[in-house]
Amino acid sequence: MKEQGKSPIGIFDSGIGGLTVVRALAAALPSEDLLYVGDTAHLPYGEKSLLAVREYALRISEYLYERGCKLVVIACNTASAAAREELRRHWAGRMQVVDVISPLVEDIAGRNFKKIGVIATKATIRSDVYARSLHELRPDVEVYSLATSLLAQMIEEGFFNNQISRSVLHQYLSYPDFEDIEALLLACTHYPIVRPEIEAYFGERVRVFDSVDTVVERVRAVLAAEDLLNASERAGQCKFYVSDYTHSFQQTAEIFYKKYVPLHLLRWQGERLEPV
Amino acid sequence: MKEQGKSPIGIFDSGIGGLTVVRALAAALPSEDLLYVGDTAHLPYGEKSLLAVREYALRISEYLYERGCKLVVIACNTASAAAREELRRHWAGRMQVVDVISPLVEDIAGRNFKKIGVIATKATIRSDVYARSLHELRPDVEVYSLATSLLAQMIEEGFFNNQISRSVLHQYLSYPDFEDIEALLLACTHYPIVRPEIEAYFGERVRVFDSVDTVVERVRAVLAAEDLLNASERAGQCKFYVSDYTHSFQQTAEIFYKKYVPLHLLRWQGERLEPV
Repeated sequence: MKEQGKSPIGIFDSGIGGLTVVRALAAALPSEDLLYVGDTAHLPYGEKSLLAVREYALRISEYLYERGCKLVVIACNTASAAAREELRRHWAGRMQVVDVISPLVEDIAGRNFKKIGVIATKATIRSDVYARSLHELRPDVEVYSLATSLLAQMIEEGFFNNQISRSVLHQYLSYPDFEDIEALLLACTHYPIVRPEIEAYFGERVRVFDSVDTVVERVRAVLAAEDLLNASERAGQCKFYVSDYTHSFQQTAEIFYKKYVPLHLLRWQGERLEPV
Repeated sequence: MKEQGKSPIGIFDSGIGGLTVVRALAAALPSEDLLYVGDTAHLPYGEKSLLAVREYALRISEYLYERGCKLVVIACNTASAAAREELRRHWAGRMQVVDVISPLVEDIAGRNFKKIGVIATKATIRSDVYARSLHELRPDVEVYSLATSLLAQMIEEGFFNNQISRSVLHQYLSYPDFEDIEALLLACTHYPIVRPEIEAYFGERVRVFDSVDTVVERVRAVLAAEDLLNASERAGQCKFYVSDYTHSFQQTAEIFYKKYVPLHLLRWQGERLEPV
């Protein structure tokens, strides 16, 4: 292992949803130190312009680089759509960048689906990144995309496995273009929470995918290829930062992390994230 | 009329909901120039900390003051809860400040209700401003508050007068503490859009109030008292600014303004709002 192997993995999202990725990373790579930034001051990214989101993503990655991260995970589809190419270019040779879109797209392109549905935030759908990336690898697939803008907040409010989530999901998933799809991609890090309800809606006829597992495997593969996996036997530490703190963020974090998460505050000072 | 009477009225909100207030102001005071700022870069305020919202409100009011406004309307309950006292103190003698909370609270305190419900965003409810303000005027009333966090985005997504809005409203309004209320205050500038559905839910037994009309009357009264009403006969102009622009904000604006609104972009440059 290179010396830099002891450095932490940075993970960021607009808010709390990226904790689904942190949880899976902590389970799969238990020796790694993890450093999470949720940009709750600007949440939700899914409603903002790609230009604004790109700027936030660059600034957060600067903070993570200054904290010594060896790799940064863009644990948010909207931020991945807006900034993955720019971040990869910007940090080339200095910090590895893993986004949540490429690993899933490459996995799906290797399977034999002809008609694929995608649900995501408005900004992700507007970027058209899933259709474009899938078509680069598989020009023959048909991709049907739908912005399901209410889902993320619905989940954050704790509305899942109930009458409201069933109504809202039914409204979205009955989208006529989804009638013949064989696979549905959950292109938002919040959506794994309602994956069982989505699978129940479609039954056997549609396979449902989220990006969490493929992203974890991609992180492992990138670190292994660069000889940067932390080889120590001690348990890694997780630190969690948010750019705005409320009790409600604290409660929502438990929905995604499945246990208590101590959130610490950073503040945007002009264009920099700084400790309070 | 004083010379300053020709100056515009500034109105701001975290996003688009405050347009319900602009629309009513334009109808009631047709000679006034109106200048609207929707802080869409930070929307929704209702999920953020009061500290962060107070800072944004102060900065936006500085922009409006620099644009020569004679009066600023805080057309957002969360921002009114977070910043109305600070803004009033800060601008005393220089710019009038009208918030959306005081006029409604004073109107309600003058009526003979004993049990009053309040629905609003998380941040407004957390501030406890309605209960505190009502109790200052009427220590005998009982106030029951509920954060109805999904409503604002539900409305922005165009989910009203349908099965989803009925489910969500039913879930919230069946809150046990609301069983005996005589009045319900809609303490968010988005909620007038679902007022008919809320009235239908409760029927005759609960009177429903929003702040739009009382705020317009307060603006008129404050301007009249200061001899600042625009006495000219020409039609006033409305200008609309947002701190982040997307096509979707443009569409949402029509839900609240009932017609097309040309949105122009301002950007946060550090702590200042500046034209692009």
